Amino acid sequence: MPTSPPPRWISTPTGFLMVLREGDGVFAQLEALAVREAVPSASFMGFGFLRRATFGFYDFERREYRPRTFEQLELANMTGTLAWKEGKPSVHAHGVAGDAGFATVGGHLLGLEVGTGSLEVTIICHERRLEREVEPRIGAKILSLGTG
Amino acid sequence: MPTSPPPRWISTPTGFLMVLREGDGVFAQLEALAVREAVPSASFMGFGFLRRATFGFYDFERREYRPRTFEQLELANMTGTLAWKEGKPSVHAHGVAGDAGFATVGGHLLGLEVGTGSLEVTIICHERRLEREVEPRIGAKILSLGTG
Amino acid sequence: MPTSPPPRWISTPTGFLMVLREGDGVFAQLEALAVREAVPSASFMGFGFLRRATFGFYDFERREYRPRTFEQLELANMTGTLAWKEGKPSVHAHGVAGDAGFATVGGHLLGLEVGTGSLEVTIICHERRLEREVEPRIGAKILSLGTG
Repeated sequence: MPTSPPPRWISTPTGFLMVLREGDGVFAQLEALAVREAVPSASFMGFGFLRRATFGFYDFERREYRPRTFEQLELANMTGTLAWKEGKPSVHAHGVAGDAGFATVGGHLLGLEVGTGSLEVTIICHERRLEREVEPRIGAKILSLGTG
Repeated sequence: MPTSPPPRWISTPTGFLMVLREGDGVFAQLEALAVREAVPSASFMGFGFLRRATFGFYDFERREYRPRTFEQLELANMTGTLAWKEGKPSVHAHGVAGDAGFATVGGHLLGLEVGTGSLEVTIICHERRLEREVEPRIGAKILSLGTG
Repeated sequence: MPTSPPPRWISTPTGFLMVLREGDGVFAQLEALAVREAVPSASFMGFGFLRRATFGFYDFERREYRPRTFEQLELANMTGTLAWKEGKPSVHAHGVAGDAGFATVGGHLLGLEVGTGSLEVTIICHERRLEREVEPRIGAKILSLGTG
């Protein structure tokens, strides 16, 4: 009989505490939490060990991220928010990661895969459902707090 | 008829969520929030895109910050607290920011201006009004938790 | 008559706010808070000035951290969690720190001593008592959320 995987998160007084394991996709797990727990919106912070991290710097002329992938890094900090876009969860996160010599890279995160060990994320939930909206002038998604 | 600017923050169960836009001064907006919402004290974390960031390293002999300004950076993380000093809000924040090649700079922040896109700040409010006090021996402002 | 030391923390609606002073060991103070306040588990974020920081990169073959110590740094961000192991508090924290020229180092933190000035930590408490467990395959301590 197959055993269930261990739970990836528990609820806390302010939201959720998530512990991800080797091979987990960090954004996929945050999106799964948003859907299963019906999170209206949230802020989060995390840290842990990464097998692979893809950072992207936004090129406003080409309207696309210039990506670069790094491997075997300690994620020193991840800071982000969870909202919705067209009915699907939308993660926006930045991070800083250090290598075996403690040299760091940082910026906008396009994707993260957990390495040997774990990655812990603390999620602080908000009550209002928030949407990200593409701002046509710059082509970037902006978290909308409602109209003035 | 001029339209109102969109709101810069909403309240949340633990404090406030702020979304700043191009040209906003991050410290000025945090100070405005402190005053308008009568925040006794708070901790915050943020991330976003910066047109300009001024970092300062404190020179304890000269009792002043040695500043350096950087432009067009992703703010990977900002960590800080909000308190009061002589009746005015007092922001203390540190940060890490990455450039187009993901190289990072970090330390004490003297000022931040939001660039193209946005900058999101999560503010966690505390109940007790806290003051920063200058410690004469070192000339630095210290967050006071009261006397022992 | 000797005076009491000033308090190192106050309670907040979501946990605690800690202000550490020159010479304080950050992990020792977090462990003291865990014991005295009977914290079941918590997440925290911090920043401040460091006299000394020891980072360690985990060598999975040797099953030990390769350490390196840095001095006189601004701690730009510390992100971590507080749990228990065999009846004692267990701190896990990562960080990024910048030097006088704003160059940064980052990764897993083995120890931190506060420098001239202060170091502020915001602790967000959870209700469930959590344990760290050594995972035999990799020799690393993992935060356990319970069994699947």
